[in-house]
Amino acid sequence: MPVSGDAATLALVLDLLGTFVFGLSGGTLAVRRGLDIIGVLVLSTAAALAGGMARDVLLGATPVAALADSRYLLAALVAGLAAFLGHPLVERLGKPVMVFDALGLGLFAVTGCRKALAYGMDPLPSLLLGVVTAAGGGVLRDLLVAEVPRVLRGEIYALAALLGAGVVVLGDGLGLPAAPVTLAGVGAAFLLRLVSVRRGWDAPRSPWS
Amino acid sequence: MPVSGDAATLALVLDLLGTFVFGLSGGTLAVRRGLDIIGVLVLSTAAALAGGMARDVLLGATPVAALADSRYLLAALVAGLAAFLGHPLVERLGKPVMVFDALGLGLFAVTGCRKALAYGMDPLPSLLLGVVTAAGGGVLRDLLVAEVPRVLRGEIYALAALLGAGVVVLGDGLGLPAAPVTLAGVGAAFLLRLVSVRRGWDAPRSPWS
Amino acid sequence: MPVSGDAATLALVLDLLGTFVFGLSGGTLAVRRGLDIIGVLVLSTAAALAGGMARDVLLGATPVAALADSRYLLAALVAGLAAFLGHPLVERLGKPVMVFDALGLGLFAVTGCRKALAYGMDPLPSLLLGVVTAAGGGVLRDLLVAEVPRVLRGEIYALAALLGAGVVVLGDGLGLPAAPVTLAGVGAAFLLRLVSVRRGWDAPRSPWS
Repeated sequence: MPVSGDAATLALVLDLLGTFVFGLSGGTLAVRRGLDIIGVLVLSTAAALAGGMARDVLLGATPVAALADSRYLLAALVAGLAAFLGHPLVERLGKPVMVFDALGLGLFAVTGCRKALAYGMDPLPSLLLGVVTAAGGGVLRDLLVAEVPRVLRGEIYALAALLGAGVVVLGDGLGLPAAPVTLAGVGAAFLLRLVSVRRGWDAPRSPWS
Repeated sequence: MPVSGDAATLALVLDLLGTFVFGLSGGTLAVRRGLDIIGVLVLSTAAALAGGMARDVLLGATPVAALADSRYLLAALVAGLAAFLGHPLVERLGKPVMVFDALGLGLFAVTGCRKALAYGMDPLPSLLLGVVTAAGGGVLRDLLVAEVPRVLRGEIYALAALLGAGVVVLGDGLGLPAAPVTLAGVGAAFLLRLVSVRRGWDAPRSPWS
Repeated sequence: MPVSGDAATLALVLDLLGTFVFGLSGGTLAVRRGLDIIGVLVLSTAAALAGGMARDVLLGATPVAALADSRYLLAALVAGLAAFLGHPLVERLGKPVMVFDALGLGLFAVTGCRKALAYGMDPLPSLLLGVVTAAGGGVLRDLLVAEVPRVLRGEIYALAALLGAGVVVLGDGLGLPAAPVTLAGVGAAFLLRLVSVRRGWDAPRSPWS
């Protein structure tokens, strides 16, 4: 399906915005933990780009997209600098940042899953790569400050990514056109994440834990 | 050497069984640490597949085998679900699980080393990739809950993998046929692991530590 | 530019020396933390080779160079053995080890950045890959013992790598010949690192941390 120039531009802008907001989450955590400027930039870069890098490395889509186009790295570094210099402002913007983070989560899950399908992966591995794209950066971000990654500890985060990727796998399996499926997948992940934060929903734990 | 259909089927079944048991080790640790369902599935997947993924990524054998064939991911996820729902049963099966884990260790060390040799690697890097295949999943599993990986802390685990891979490198260097060398390698790793657990053997520490 | 045999030999010797000294840092940390022989060899290998491996994996330069030539792995393992058997001696050699580590830092930053440029990466990602090559091993080394990586916590380490890579990007952009640019890049990183250790300089922290 040919993509119109406007749609492609919109997709790029949203992708860079998602990268920037993921970068803010990394930079903010680094400032809170008292890391130096390098630590802040490393955590913003890791949070913003590591998920997509892991996806591309596992698929063999190299050099990875996050390095082949400098704008992604630039977005991540600017986010790190913003957290370094304007930490109190970023903290005060917690709500809008959370909303954009939920949007980034949906976008990354959907684009990651779609890329895996385009590389000929089966539905199940494609779901995994959607989740890895969306949640992998947050996992590395938390590991770098020696903490158990948040996304493994109860919040509906990876589950929302899984829902978004699931919509793509389902729509693709049914042969539906890509644009509305993409919208539905991003929207589903976005809404599940937002609602779960508002209502304080947690992912289920084992009855034995 | 042509592989008969029966031998290939047996190899696949053993490989999937090893994957499943490695997945149990990840899921069980996640339940013990109170992670949610996503955390349990992530740890079972990481424990089961990360070693082979690392091997394939370092070799450039992409898309990695653990994603190209969905059955591996399925085995890892089923193991995670089993740990999530049936934790006490899995704990009670500690001994059989340990035996299958030792078998998986031997299998993964041998197949990992053989794949590296098939990609033209020298003996020393092939040994390393055998150990990475067998022990890499356990390393990531422990890192994800912010603990120093068990395999670095005294148990004869990676050493058993090294023995299995060493048998393959030696047999390959001597031009021996693949099937008996594979059996000998898996068996050597398996036995060393079992005996060391039974007798409480530890890997040596530095006189200075 | 054709490289004379002597220059190529010198480059290889320096590269292996840097690998060895990075390996010493990993092995020494492992002995201090009471890891077993496998843990010591894993940490020396991770510290020595993980940075270059990450660079090659992200670029798609596989099988990665650190495995394609066995001498790198050998240098890392010998360093681990030296730390295991001769820990007090290595500790007493703290100053020379630090000097060689600073040299390795400069070398790895420059060669990593140059390889990225040779793979057609833009300046910004090339800088990142220079820093990853030089500092990535130290990051993994510290993560494996569940500690927040030193290079994120204030020392002028990654910043020195960034300076060395920056000299390469600048010289390459200006079309200057490779040999003097390489020397200047290695020298700049080396000197900044040495001086910052002597004077106790720290990388800046956020005013808000």
